[in-house]
Amino acid sequence: MWQAVLGFQVGVTDMSRSDKIGILVTGSAGMLGRKLVERILRDGHLGGKQLGELLLADVAPTEMPADAPVGTRVFVTDFSQPGAAAELVKSRPQVIFHLAAVVSGEAEADFEKGYRVNFDGSRALFEAIRQARYVPRLVFASSVAVFGGPFPEVIPDSFFTTPLSSYGTQKAMVELLLADYTRRGFLDGVGIRLPTITIRPGKPNKAASGFYSSILREPLNGKEAVLPVDENMRHWFASPRAATGFLIHAANIDSKVLGGRRTLTMPGLSATVGDQLAALRRVAGEDVPALVKREPDPAIAKIVTTWPQRFEATGAQALGFVAESTFDEIIAVYMEDEMSSPVGKG
Amino acid sequence: MWQAVLGFQVGVTDMSRSDKIGILVTGSAGMLGRKLVERILRDGHLGGKQLGELLLADVAPTEMPADAPVGTRVFVTDFSQPGAAAELVKSRPQVIFHLAAVVSGEAEADFEKGYRVNFDGSRALFEAIRQARYVPRLVFASSVAVFGGPFPEVIPDSFFTTPLSSYGTQKAMVELLLADYTRRGFLDGVGIRLPTITIRPGKPNKAASGFYSSILREPLNGKEAVLPVDENMRHWFASPRAATGFLIHAANIDSKVLGGRRTLTMPGLSATVGDQLAALRRVAGEDVPALVKREPDPAIAKIVTTWPQRFEATGAQALGFVAESTFDEIIAVYMEDEMSSPVGKG
Repeated sequence: MWQAVLGFQVGVTDMSRSDKIGILVTGSAGMLGRKLVERILRDGHLGGKQLGELLLADVAPTEMPADAPVGTRVFVTDFSQPGAAAELVKSRPQVIFHLAAVVSGEAEADFEKGYRVNFDGSRALFEAIRQARYVPRLVFASSVAVFGGPFPEVIPDSFFTTPLSSYGTQKAMVELLLADYTRRGFLDGVGIRLPTITIRPGKPNKAASGFYSSILREPLNGKEAVLPVDENMRHWFASPRAATGFLIHAANIDSKVLGGRRTLTMPGLSATVGDQLAALRRVAGEDVPALVKREPDPAIAKIVTTWPQRFEATGAQALGFVAESTFDEIIAVYMEDEMSSPVGKG
Repeated sequence: MWQAVLGFQVGVTDMSRSDKIGILVTGSAGMLGRKLVERILRDGHLGGKQLGELLLADVAPTEMPADAPVGTRVFVTDFSQPGAAAELVKSRPQVIFHLAAVVSGEAEADFEKGYRVNFDGSRALFEAIRQARYVPRLVFASSVAVFGGPFPEVIPDSFFTTPLSSYGTQKAMVELLLADYTRRGFLDGVGIRLPTITIRPGKPNKAASGFYSSILREPLNGKEAVLPVDENMRHWFASPRAATGFLIHAANIDSKVLGGRRTLTMPGLSATVGDQLAALRRVAGEDVPALVKREPDPAIAKIVTTWPQRFEATGAQALGFVAESTFDEIIAVYMEDEMSSPVGKG
């Protein structure tokens, strides 16, 4: 009996088969997935190993990267469907970035879809790995939505997860699964709780956090934007570039130091809407913030008020995860990475 | 969009249909289930309402209580199987005590069974309630096994759940589901994290905590018992009678005060094995503890060392949940409830 209880399989990342590294990215058609793949292709290696197979999976068609190397495969797949996840891990990719998810607004609007994709889909992926009997590093993109107020002023790493959305609930449940599958030796999981990613390029998605990006992105591109909340609303941010860096770093760290606690709250920048607009003024000029129109929306304000404002992120910082420390930097990252002709200072 | 996000159904316990109260107990053949049913039948009412229908469900046959009233039904059922949970809630019992679970040792030894029963079974029950479109009070028996070390000396209510067993993982996942189903208005959930229940009557089960009961129960009955750990091992306890009281109280409290945080760590007694044996000596006489044989078992010690030792349980105490404050009381409860001819003082 006790032998069975204690007889954990020892989890060792299976990197021995070749000098090249196979990588699977789920959610590869999403904003973060595309940025991660760009970064991996630009680096040309991961964890000191040359890129081998690169598997890009999403329920939406992933645009094939222009510089995709030999060994790239693109899947349009829903791995919450039977057999789909097994197909993805058949070639035993040594690093899996699991980003695929229905966003918060959609998971709230469609209860069953949120659980099917965000929870059952993740579980199906973990099960497929267990059945394939190999132990990849699995980096899981979780979210600060696992937390729900009331909060202390600064949230410690040991704070409990009491989500106030179905999305946050699903992420918190997968964090638990990730830790248990890792403890059992079925995979080598590292979960990272991403701050709100700002400035998102492109168009708004269904996330309630959309305005945090649009009040900067739209004015930087000469367009008006709507601010639905007060300027003193405070939240926790990192740029898409920092988030991509978190993912890469999570694939490379020595996961043994995590012990049984496999998910880390990522570092970020605690800032108010006022801080955002002040940075916009400094970077883009006095007149640019005038493009932001105040149109208070109590429904959005009610959601956003329940979100966390500041974390310690002590554990992640000790392990070398790094985010921006000012909104000026976050804006500069957007202008470098997304704008061909940045707005000048006035 | 925002209307959908905020359009929660309001959860109101559906007690309006009759003056009598219908009750479902899952895990009714287990130790705690039997004690709960005894208590309910002795009280003859719950929450100020006369007993109506009493549904007793377990995968093992539940012995029909001698004094079972008209309206009692006993089910041998596995509600992780399709359709089984729907059958249990068809008559819309207004209070559901969800105790059914595979114990910790078995959930560790049989990975798939643990998830199937403890997680999928609970989810199937919640889904059946959602589909039945009524809002019962659901009392979920969780466990301090949702916590995993390292711990602070005293664990606050806001401490994170990082279980070190599959059983603890499954309980923590169900806690999250319970809160989300409640927030959505699908049920009115209250989770209670039970301390290690001591002194368990009868024979040991597969729980790793078994010796905490047997080192008292066996000597009180004139038999030898084995102590596999050091006397300074500290843990968190309550009697079966206190646990039954927690369940009844959880069925009756005004759950609105819980807000989004639907699971509470129950109060208990923090005590060492030495404290247990000292109490045994005081209650049963100087010679009785000599029946406890020291046979160190590193495998058991390794598990037990990771368990929590002391909680604040501030929230539960404020809501009126009460446990024993000495091991003398816990032993007295056992002697009153379980022994027809208690051992005298020498």
